[in-house]
Amino acid sequence: MSGQQGHVQRPLDALGKATNSPVLIKLKGNREFRGILKSFDLHMNLVLNDAEELEKGEVTRRLGTVLIRGDNIVYISP
Amino acid sequence: MSGQQGHVQRPLDALGKATNSPVLIKLKGNREFRGILKSFDLHMNLVLNDAEELEKGEVTRRLGTVLIRGDNIVYISP
Amino acid sequence: MSGQQGHVQRPLDALGKATNSPVLIKLKGNREFRGILKSFDLHMNLVLNDAEELEKGEVTRRLGTVLIRGDNIVYISP
Amino acid sequence: MSGQQGHVQRPLDALGKATNSPVLIKLKGNREFRGILKSFDLHMNLVLNDAEELEKGEVTRRLGTVLIRGDNIVYISP
Amino acid sequence: MSGQQGHVQRPLDALGKATNSPVLIKLKGNREFRGILKSFDLHMNLVLNDAEELEKGEVTRRLGTVLIRGDNIVYISP
Amino acid sequence: MSGQQGHVQRPLDALGKATNSPVLIKLKGNREFRGILKSFDLHMNLVLNDAEELEKGEVTRRLGTVLIRGDNIVYISP
Amino acid sequence: MSGQQGHVQRPLDALGKATNSPVLIKLKGNREFRGILKSFDLHMNLVLNDAEELEKGEVTRRLGTVLIRGDNIVYISP
Repeated sequence: MSGQQGHVQRPLDALGKATNSPVLIKLKGNREFRGILKSFDLHMNLVLNDAEELEKGEVTRRLGTVLIRGDNIVYISP
Repeated sequence: MSGQQGHVQRPLDALGKATNSPVLIKLKGNREFRGILKSFDLHMNLVLNDAEELEKGEVTRRLGTVLIRGDNIVYISP
Repeated sequence: MSGQQGHVQRPLDALGKATNSPVLIKLKGNREFRGILKSFDLHMNLVLNDAEELEKGEVTRRLGTVLIRGDNIVYISP
Repeated sequence: MSGQQGHVQRPLDALGKATNSPVLIKLKGNREFRGILKSFDLHMNLVLNDAEELEKGEVTRRLGTVLIRGDNIVYISP
Repeated sequence: MSGQQGHVQRPLDALGKATNSPVLIKLKGNREFRGILKSFDLHMNLVLNDAEELEKGEVTRRLGTVLIRGDNIVYISP
Repeated sequence: MSGQQGHVQRPLDALGKATNSPVLIKLKGNREFRGILKSFDLHMNLVLNDAEELEKGEVTRRLGTVLIRGDNIVYISP
Repeated sequence: MSGQQGHVQRPLDALGKATNSPVLIKLKGNREFRGILKSFDLHMNLVLNDAEELEKGEVTRRLGTVLIRGDNIVYISP
């Protein structure tokens, strides 16, 4: 990992910074979630509060708290 | 995991809190289960009591006790 | 795993209790098995006796003893 | 793994017993093999002699000796 | 790994060199991202800034910062 | 692994014996290769010489030397 | 791994020999790349220079340098 200097950022640091803030989660198979990121682990398992599920931009379900299994995730955007 | 302070929550803590309470389980391929969460492990294998399977919101089977293999799970909502 | 007290149940304990009893096994791709659970391991590989395979509720094959590879399993119901 | 007593059977013991005997192997994607089980390992990689491949119950190919990669296997029936 | 001499390059070194520069990311299922690579880890999890998602060459979404889970990635081009 | 006695054969021994001989390789998705097995490892990565790719029994490409990634393999027949 | 004598070749040695030479890479889902192999690791992650992507034998994109994630690879031919 040459080419990195000083304070090395790691990708999961972005989740640490996003904790308690709104995030957009894209899952395999085109499902999306919006909610407040409460916790995550190294597998990208994560818990959202005030979560809503979306398909094609439409809210299809309000879930309150939800634990998403990390291996379903395509991307997470704070 | 910078940005986290004090008591660190981990995603699976949400399952510990939900034990003996009703949960909704979404599986890959759109299958759903409702039931009382009795136990879980680090792979998200879990046991439900009073479990019912649903497709498109309709109960398709009542299973009593069921052990669900964790790698099928998309999300769990308490 | 906060929220659990005293005797901690683990999901695979449900298989220990179901040994020598009839179980229903659902596999990925909608295949089902019924039979007597004889043994299992931590990967959920398991052996059934008097096993029959079902599709859409119809028995399609009687197999006697069968070893099912755990990674195919969606759920197991005692 | 409570509920098991005395001599603990493990699923792969069923393969040890089936060695040098005919077995039926079902693979993901509905392919089947029949042959004499010669060897296996913990990944369920296995070697058959006098192997024939079947689709929908019809023999489509005679292979003699074949090494099947374990991760393709759905079930094995002695 | 014969045939390599002196300073051994490893594939992820290419990501170290591309940090803070624009990259094109191709995901399984034909989704693409363009953005500035900010960080990556050994699983190829990575963070982009100024990220935009594309399908068939058209920008479909502007995401700002995005964490992409490495197991979705087909290729990365600096 | 009871039931095995004396010299224990392991499935990958079949590849050791087949080295420098012609083999048939079946891949997931129905692709086939024929060639001379030159080397293999524990993941079933393997190198063929004089390799040709077949679809539905027809040679579609002559490749000379080819390294096949083991996780694509369904079976190998010497 | 009986049957092998003297200098044991391993499949990834073929990549060491192919470094700095042209290779053909076939990916799952029928995508192909041609380019000069610059580096690789044990996961078969690899970097190509002067890379071009092909579908059905037609060049669809010129990429210059590209890092391909090893788990997408079906085969590599020097």
